[in-house]
Amino acid sequence: MTIKNPFFKKVKNINITKIYKVLGLKKKTKKNENIVNITDLSNANHNDISFFNSVKYLDHLKKSKAKYIISDNKHFNIIKDYCDPIIVKNVFKAVSLITEMFYPDSLKDAIDFSLSKVNKKNYTKVEFGKNVLIGKNVKIGKNSIIGHNTLIESNVHIGENCVIGNNVLIKNTIIGDNVRILDGSIIGKKGFGFFPQNNFNIRYPHIGMVIIKDNVEIGCNNTIDRGSLSNTIIGNNTFIDNQVHIAHNVKIGSNCIITGQVGFAGSSSIGDNVSIGGQAGISGHLKIGNNVKIGGGSGVIKNIPDNSSVMGYPAKNIRIFLKENK
Amino acid sequence: MTIKNPFFKKVKNINITKIYKVLGLKKKTKKNENIVNITDLSNANHNDISFFNSVKYLDHLKKSKAKYIISDNKHFNIIKDYCDPIIVKNVFKAVSLITEMFYPDSLKDAIDFSLSKVNKKNYTKVEFGKNVLIGKNVKIGKNSIIGHNTLIESNVHIGENCVIGNNVLIKNTIIGDNVRILDGSIIGKKGFGFFPQNNFNIRYPHIGMVIIKDNVEIGCNNTIDRGSLSNTIIGNNTFIDNQVHIAHNVKIGSNCIITGQVGFAGSSSIGDNVSIGGQAGISGHLKIGNNVKIGGGSGVIKNIPDNSSVMGYPAKNIRIFLKENK
Amino acid sequence: MTIKNPFFKKVKNINITKIYKVLGLKKKTKKNENIVNITDLSNANHNDISFFNSVKYLDHLKKSKAKYIISDNKHFNIIKDYCDPIIVKNVFKAVSLITEMFYPDSLKDAIDFSLSKVNKKNYTKVEFGKNVLIGKNVKIGKNSIIGHNTLIESNVHIGENCVIGNNVLIKNTIIGDNVRILDGSIIGKKGFGFFPQNNFNIRYPHIGMVIIKDNVEIGCNNTIDRGSLSNTIIGNNTFIDNQVHIAHNVKIGSNCIITGQVGFAGSSSIGDNVSIGGQAGISGHLKIGNNVKIGGGSGVIKNIPDNSSVMGYPAKNIRIFLKENK
Repeated sequence: MTIKNPFFKKVKNINITKIYKVLGLKKKTKKNENIVNITDLSNANHNDISFFNSVKYLDHLKKSKAKYIISDNKHFNIIKDYCDPIIVKNVFKAVSLITEMFYPDSLKDAIDFSLSKVNKKNYTKVEFGKNVLIGKNVKIGKNSIIGHNTLIESNVHIGENCVIGNNVLIKNTIIGDNVRILDGSIIGKKGFGFFPQNNFNIRYPHIGMVIIKDNVEIGCNNTIDRGSLSNTIIGNNTFIDNQVHIAHNVKIGSNCIITGQVGFAGSSSIGDNVSIGGQAGISGHLKIGNNVKIGGGSGVIKNIPDNSSVMGYPAKNIRIFLKENK
Repeated sequence: MTIKNPFFKKVKNINITKIYKVLGLKKKTKKNENIVNITDLSNANHNDISFFNSVKYLDHLKKSKAKYIISDNKHFNIIKDYCDPIIVKNVFKAVSLITEMFYPDSLKDAIDFSLSKVNKKNYTKVEFGKNVLIGKNVKIGKNSIIGHNTLIESNVHIGENCVIGNNVLIKNTIIGDNVRILDGSIIGKKGFGFFPQNNFNIRYPHIGMVIIKDNVEIGCNNTIDRGSLSNTIIGNNTFIDNQVHIAHNVKIGSNCIITGQVGFAGSSSIGDNVSIGGQAGISGHLKIGNNVKIGGGSGVIKNIPDNSSVMGYPAKNIRIFLKENK
Repeated sequence: MTIKNPFFKKVKNINITKIYKVLGLKKKTKKNENIVNITDLSNANHNDISFFNSVKYLDHLKKSKAKYIISDNKHFNIIKDYCDPIIVKNVFKAVSLITEMFYPDSLKDAIDFSLSKVNKKNYTKVEFGKNVLIGKNVKIGKNSIIGHNTLIESNVHIGENCVIGNNVLIKNTIIGDNVRILDGSIIGKKGFGFFPQNNFNIRYPHIGMVIIKDNVEIGCNNTIDRGSLSNTIIGNNTFIDNQVHIAHNVKIGSNCIITGQVGFAGSSSIGDNVSIGGQAGISGHLKIGNNVKIGGGSGVIKNIPDNSSVMGYPAKNIRIFLKENK
């Protein structure tokens, strides 16, 4: 999480008075502070603003350095001892408004029109296929190869000895060494997060990145969405098969094996050494421990502790599942 | 349904005598009528031919204006009072033969070889990425943007303020205003409908379109097939995540939220304000009501009334599902 | 299986002494034989080396012509009467090492940099879209058409009267006549097979092909991986919908109907006239008989005999499934 996000231009500071005003609130403090950023509880520094919308995140709250935390009446008593609460009716809508203040261009990221034919002289020991289009300030390490028709948007970093296949689209992503991203995959698009509203849903900025660590393999026709406020992370030496969907903010540990057509809803975290069989689905906001095995076709709707093997829909202990279904 | 289909050239009229002849039937009426079109029961006018193959569509039959209706012996007594029945052995095969008579080029639509580099002068206030290929008579409204490598086939209409991502393929589709279709999605391909036959399946024409109404968002790597005789329709302000598959003739209402990897088999209709969790599947020819919630991973094999919440495989009342699976 | 594999350059012969040495074994035989190839039990000739790792393949063992068979202590007594056993600790690792000796370039196949703009003069009666890139020694039969932006790698064979859609990637594949492969599909990529190892999984060569027989239809955004040692095969007149994933070594028979978002794990074999409903999953190394019907959403984890109809997760007799779920 210490990797700097080069993708979304941040306004330097915003005065807390202005933030209260945009939220339609009366400011109660007299100090005229500057706020530096909006981010999640874990990543916030003292001069940042963050948000709290569920007791699930109580541990994060307790450790958070954020001074100002956006929340609602329901959670006021929980947060009041840890921060300066900013109480609003709709937490997500408020977060969205403030995020757009800090990152004014972040909603217009669907297409990078600055892409142009790659100038091979800018890249040492990198081999490019035909019709590759590349943005500004893209870094690609030596001995990496990039397939035909692939699009790499501005500010993407790709490490050494990487293979990026054909027809790949990469945006808002930082990639380590020895990584393979195969044909047709789309990495770093905005997640499926918005405020449902009759006749006109409101999109909010997603300013996180995708971070892909060393030795990862990502198969064909995958979609990995970037984080909204935090990042989507794929850990070291994790291998992912074809047609897998990974939603925003998902964190996957190291040495995981994820088979074809698996899907992850948003914000779940997966431990190390986890193997997941084909077509399994992991609901949102779950915590899957280390060394977990999830059978093919499973639907996981609860947290799973370390060292468990589960299968079924909803997923349960695999021995029980197999016994019940003999 | 009043949107004119600009995609498939129709023969002006076909004489009923000729239709009987192609079906290998003896004509019983003496009048030498001209038939204008073949279409489904709801859309047929008085001079059109339609078909009836299941009592599921009895309501449609009762309201249909179609004079001639193709059906089989089993349904003769049901339809005889509503129309001039044309009784055949295999309804679908007959429909296919007549459809091909009316739309002789409709089976050869896999590739539009008329695509060429976009002439930007033809489009006002539209921004195009690199390598966009575009067909004839394509209309794109102002303030829309089109991503790199995207293919837009002839006669497609795209409204104002739309975002069409990179590597998108659009054919046989009419798109409203403020619509986003993201990277890698394929919209308007022929559906998976054919007559199974040993060693050589017979493809039949699919002459419907895809209609995407205003404010819709369609994520990455989706496939939305066009209708066979009627249209595939995505209602206003419906948002669709990544890797969703929507088969031919599916009608989705307004303000729906459809999460990643959901699949719809052919001809189902989905109401307004429906939310569907990740990886759920909806079988064919079903009617899902308004305000329905379908849990992630569900397999829906029956109609669902308005205002229900279901989950499971097969899907049942969500409270019962969760109680049974505590 | 008699189709020659033109995709991976094989070293002519390797002496058995060298093979023992690479495996860290002491050679027990005195004869100084040359081994011609490494392949699976069914395809091996007398001078080839093969492997045996499960009693599931006992029938294949009994009929195999392979003289040398790599296996482990556990299977020594089973194989000893059929061959000259080469006993190792890790069968797959040994197979991988020997495969790489025979096919030294097989791991570097992610991108074919020899692709170039198609020279239409080389192809008689073939129509090409814009920006097609094509490798060396590609054969395309007459009256075939190739869509825009499609990539066809070296040595691929495409038969007559074929339709290859837009944005398709084909590698390591032999295609019959009257085949349709629609937009966005990726055919012939290396399968998801490797040796899991902490911090650095080891990839092994996949030297099989994809063989697509006559009259097949493959929909949009499919992924069909090539075989590892044997081939991935799609039988005559089998039709496949959109977003289907077929892993390495899968063999599908003739006249099958495979609906959207179905997934096949590696090495399963599917009979003739099999129909599979949407989103069903087939586990690895299974044998599905002829005339089997698999309901939508099913999870198949056992072999299924001929003429059965199954549904459920795990899949069971469909009548029992429907009765239990009324």
